[in-house]
Formats: sequence, structure tokens, C-alpha cells
Amino acid sequence: MSHSLQNDRYIKACLQQSVDRTPIWMMRQAGRYLPEYRQLRAEAGSFMDLCTNPELACEVTLQPLRRFPLDAAILFSDILTIPDAMGLGLYFTPGEGPAFKTAVRNASQVAALPIPDPHQELKYVTDAVSTIRRELKGQVPLIGFSGSPWTLATYMVEGGTTKNFSEVKGMMYADPQAMHALLDKLADSIILYLNAQVEAGAQALMIFDTWGGVLTPADYQEFSLRYMQKIVAGLKREYDGQTIPVTLFTKGGGAWLDVMAKTGCDCLGVDWTTNLADARALVNGKTALQGNMDPSILYGSDQRIREEVSKILASYGQGSGHVFNLGHGIHQTVQPEKAGVFIDAVHELSKQYHQ
Amino acid sequence: MSHSLQNDRYIKACLQQSVDRTPIWMMRQAGRYLPEYRQLRAEAGSFMDLCTNPELACEVTLQPLRRFPLDAAILFSDILTIPDAMGLGLYFTPGEGPAFKTAVRNASQVAALPIPDPHQELKYVTDAVSTIRRELKGQVPLIGFSGSPWTLATYMVEGGTTKNFSEVKGMMYADPQAMHALLDKLADSIILYLNAQVEAGAQALMIFDTWGGVLTPADYQEFSLRYMQKIVAGLKREYDGQTIPVTLFTKGGGAWLDVMAKTGCDCLGVDWTTNLADARALVNGKTALQGNMDPSILYGSDQRIREEVSKILASYGQGSGHVFNLGHGIHQTVQPEKAGVFIDAVHELSKQYHQ
Repeated sequence: MSHSLQNDRYIKACLQQSVDRTPIWMMRQAGRYLPEYRQLRAEAGSFMDLCTNPELACEVTLQPLRRFPLDAAILFSDILTIPDAMGLGLYFTPGEGPAFKTAVRNASQVAALPIPDPHQELKYVTDAVSTIRRELKGQVPLIGFSGSPWTLATYMVEGGTTKNFSEVKGMMYADPQAMHALLDKLADSIILYLNAQVEAGAQALMIFDTWGGVLTPADYQEFSLRYMQKIVAGLKREYDGQTIPVTLFTKGGGAWLDVMAKTGCDCLGVDWTTNLADARALVNGKTALQGNMDPSILYGSDQRIREEVSKILASYGQGSGHVFNLGHGIHQTVQPEKAGVFIDAVHELSKQYHQ
Repeated sequence: MSHSLQNDRYIKACLQQSVDRTPIWMMRQAGRYLPEYRQLRAEAGSFMDLCTNPELACEVTLQPLRRFPLDAAILFSDILTIPDAMGLGLYFTPGEGPAFKTAVRNASQVAALPIPDPHQELKYVTDAVSTIRRELKGQVPLIGFSGSPWTLATYMVEGGTTKNFSEVKGMMYADPQAMHALLDKLADSIILYLNAQVEAGAQALMIFDTWGGVLTPADYQEFSLRYMQKIVAGLKREYDGQTIPVTLFTKGGGAWLDVMAKTGCDCLGVDWTTNLADARALVNGKTALQGNMDPSILYGSDQRIREEVSKILASYGQGSGHVFNLGHGIHQTVQPEKAGVFIDAVHELSKQYHQ
């Protein structure tokens, strides 16, 4: 932890402190749209072979920072490391996404799940964090992350990806106690996991609630938000003399930002289906906002990309508290040059909002 | 058209006229959750073999009405009949959903697409409508339908189902003129198609915008809503002395109901991620509302189903203008008895809201 941060725009914006321009990073900024990533992946083997090797995870994390003047790095890892460490047997099928050898479908299966020790089964993650932090040399802050309890539960109960969420909602509605037990165990596991990331060097944290948006407003609060709130309350928010900002992101949760802001997190992710002006009115100064360009804009012309950046900056308006990002991970078929146009546009066009 | 309607609750609720109880139908009420459907399907062959045979389509349409006291029938057909009639070659892959032999990716392909004649290439649909209307004998009204232009375009450009909408959004952002040309041609085709359904006997119409919710608020208005508005303006709203109510349903469009209500449609579909009380405030009396129970509630206990029905009825509140429905199609693994519990609960519990 010997390096002081050379660029702390991301941390400051999360904390709604003044910055000279809007910071930017991109979800999945280390990934398949980069030829250098595809090459390393081809050499290393599987996606999890990259995640479980701290040196390779570090290399992949740093790749986008060599190309682009990004304001943050994010740990290269998977959101399903915790269920894997619980013994469910994570694997990836080509074109189908992640899956588990064992699905969790009832109360006795939930009761049998262990809470993983982040210094044992998940040591490869904290090792990656400390390696990346060292190699970053204070260039930009390192974001650690986890999936949300509800989002992890969807994969664990379905046994993989799903369109209808029939199994996980079926369990939620038919046996809500079992679902609550699962979510509570996941929340406890995530608290340990994220705090271990902070101790290893993560300077900010993010919780990805990819599937909270498939719930009713009441069920979202009961089965997703409640457990994210428990996590926020259990996290180290100060470490090594520094504040550790926490961001929550529920995809499709734009209408619920007001209740999300009450969790005590620092920043809320917003997808492109909600205007930032509306989002800012909803959180009413309680949190910063992260987002929210549709990643598909990066298929448009350079001019179209700049126009969209300009619209989003204007939608947020004057002052700090905005971390620019896409509203979802960058698509693998985007040309890297387009990401460069996007990032440069944010740098250039955001200055006027910080005077 | 010789039969007068014995049950016109659905029509009246769409038009916000007084009813004795809240009418109910279920999206995909004719479908795989019913064993009698699965049997007929196994005998007939493919899904499209059912759709293209008016007698079989009629039989399937009527199956749920023999089991349950539903307040409306809906034409059994597919949302992709128009692109198929344009020559794209619709087919279904097991577990993967619909796909086209030819994808539409550029302006010249768009220009070459014909506008299908509903009395030629789509005659099997209007034949099904007239057959069903005759066999219904006025028991309940028959709803005709189409996919929205944007939703049809997503399948046509992607060539099938998609998770990221990369191709269709790529075309939208890289060549918006080509996308507008495609959407305009689809709107013209849908107007002809739906008006032909009305002439054949459809007593109400619904437009399914399954994928409008993946757009930004501005793009939703430009690329989806605008073309639904064109359709609403081009439809026969009175036929054979009767008003033909029109319902628009954008899944994930709960925040945009106010602008949707300005299209001049009669009713708006709402999914379960928006409370009906909020939805009713947004439309402010301009339209009726349809929805909005999460179909997964049907995996819960009978008591849980009744509780949810009760909550949704209370959320809408007193008076007409509510058509009860699920917020999406009924899942194929639901037990038919659960649908019965749901429908009975709506019948019984809704009376108090219509006094």
C-alpha cells in the first residue's frame, strides 16, 4: 500500500467531492473486445484459468489501462467465484455462459452450503488483488467486486443462465424461508469476501445486482436490496486511512434508486433505460451516480458517440458525483478504437461541468 | 358476426366503462402448460403447423376457455408471422426459440422486403380469426395481435433471439436511416395485418413490444413508440358497429407509460416491475391498464397467489379500467390448477372494487 494515488478522480466522484473532469471506466474494460486479451486467453486456456492465476489476472486487468486513459482499474474475476467456492462446480459452456454442476433447490441443500473462507478457497482472488494493486503503482484506484446475493442465487438455483427465472422465483414463492436462508448465507460470504479484497488492496467496491430488475418492487426490496443493505453495513468503509467507496448496481433498477440510496452506499449504477437527470432527482444528493451509456452506441459513428456522451453529461448536469460508464459491459464485437473515442469524448466534454 | 357478446367485461374495461368485476385473461393462456395443448401439438407436428392450420389454431385457442372462466380469447399465432411472410424463413430450434434463415442487415435488404398482403401470404391468420370467432359463439371477445415494429425488427436483424441486441442496435446506431425504413415498412405491414384481423372478426387488438424496454428513453420514443403510434392511427377503431379497443404493451416500459398513453391507444400493458398505483398515476385517466402479476407467482401456494391478486387489485384501486393479466406469458411448467386458483381469485376479490 506504499503508493499514493496519482489519479483519484474516481474515488472523489464516488464521494461527491470536486474533480476537474468526470472520471470514466468501462464495465468489462478488460475483455474480449481487446485483441491482446483474446491472445492471452488463447494461450492460458479457459476464462477461469485466467481468473485463478494472479499474474494473468493482473496482466488482463492492466491491458485496457495501457491503451486508454481510464480513471479506474477493476479486478479481473467472475461474479460466480463464491458459489464455486461453496462447491457447486462452476464451468462455462461455449455460447451458453456460466453453469453449475450442482443446483441448489431446497432448504437442506441451502443449509449444507459452507461459507467460503476468502483466505483459503478464494485466495486466488485476494492474491490477484494484491498483485494488481502492486503493479498499478498508484496510477488509478483498483475496484474490487462481487455479485449481489440475489444475483448469485439466480445462478445457483437455476444451475446456470435463464430466461424466465422460473426455478429461482419458484423457490422464492414456494419456499421463501429457504430463499432467505440462502440469501443471508450469501450476504455473510460476500461481506468476508469483499473485506478480504479491501485488505488485499482494493480501494473501492462494487456489487453487481445483474438480476434484481426481474423482481416486483416489493420482492426487490425483500429479496435483493435487503441483503445488499446488510453487506453495505458489514463492509470496511475506511482502510489504511482511506475511505473505500461502495457502489451498488441493479440493472433495470432505475425506478428504485431512491430506496437503494437509503442503504448507505456511496454511489449507484444506472443503466441506459433511465435518464441521469431523473436518477439524480430520485437520489436527491444522497449518492453519486455511475453510468449510463448504452454499450451499443459504440457501434455508431465517432460523431454519434460524442453526441451521446454530450447528452449524458448534460443530463447529469453541473458538479461532481458522476462516474461515467456504460450501462452494461462493453460488447465483445466493439472495435477498441471506438472505446478510445468514447473515453476521449468524456475527458474533453466533461470539463465544462466542473467549473 | 352474428353473435352478440355474452361477456363484454374485457371490452368495457379497456374502454374504462363500468363492469361488475375485473376481467381477466392470461398471456399465452393457450400453450404448453396445458396437457391438452401438448397432446394436440404432438399430433400436429411443429408450432407453426398449429398456427397455419385454422382449425387447429381455433381448437388451441379455445382449450383454456373450456377449463377456465376467462374473459377473453386471444388468437393463437406467432408474433413473427409478418417477417416470415416477407420471405425471411421463420423456423424454431428446440430450446433456442425462433430464428430466420435470412437476417436483414442493411438498407438494400430493407428496400427489397415486400409488404405482405394479409389476404395472401397471411391468409392462414385471417382464416384462423374467422374460424375462432365463429366457434366462440359470442362467449367472450377475441383479441387479435401483432408484434411491434421494433420487436419484429430485433428478430429480423439479429436473425433470431439475442441477449445483447448488438446487431439490431448496431444497425440502429450505425445506419439509423435504414432502421427507420425497416420500421416504417413494418408499421405499414402491421396496419394492413391488424385491420384484416378486425375484418375477419377480431374484436380487440394488442401490440406486443417485447423488446422496447432495452432502449434508452429517447431511442424508445424514436425507434419503437413512434411506429406504434403510426399503427394506432392507422387501425380501424370501429367495425361492424363496435369499438375495437387497442392495447400496447412494452415489456420494461413502466417508466414510459405517460408518453405511451399519448398515442391514442385504449389500454397499456404493464409488467410486474411497476406498481399499478404508480402506473395509474402516470397515465392519469388517459388509458386503461392491463396486468401485472409476475407469472412466477403461480409457482407459489394457493394462499400466496390470492395474496398477490389482492395486492394488485388494491394497487389499481377502485373503478373500471383494469384488465387483470400476468405481466408476461404463463410459464410452461406451471400446473394448470394454479391458473384456476389465480382466475378464481380475481373473480372473487375484484367485486369490491366495482361498487
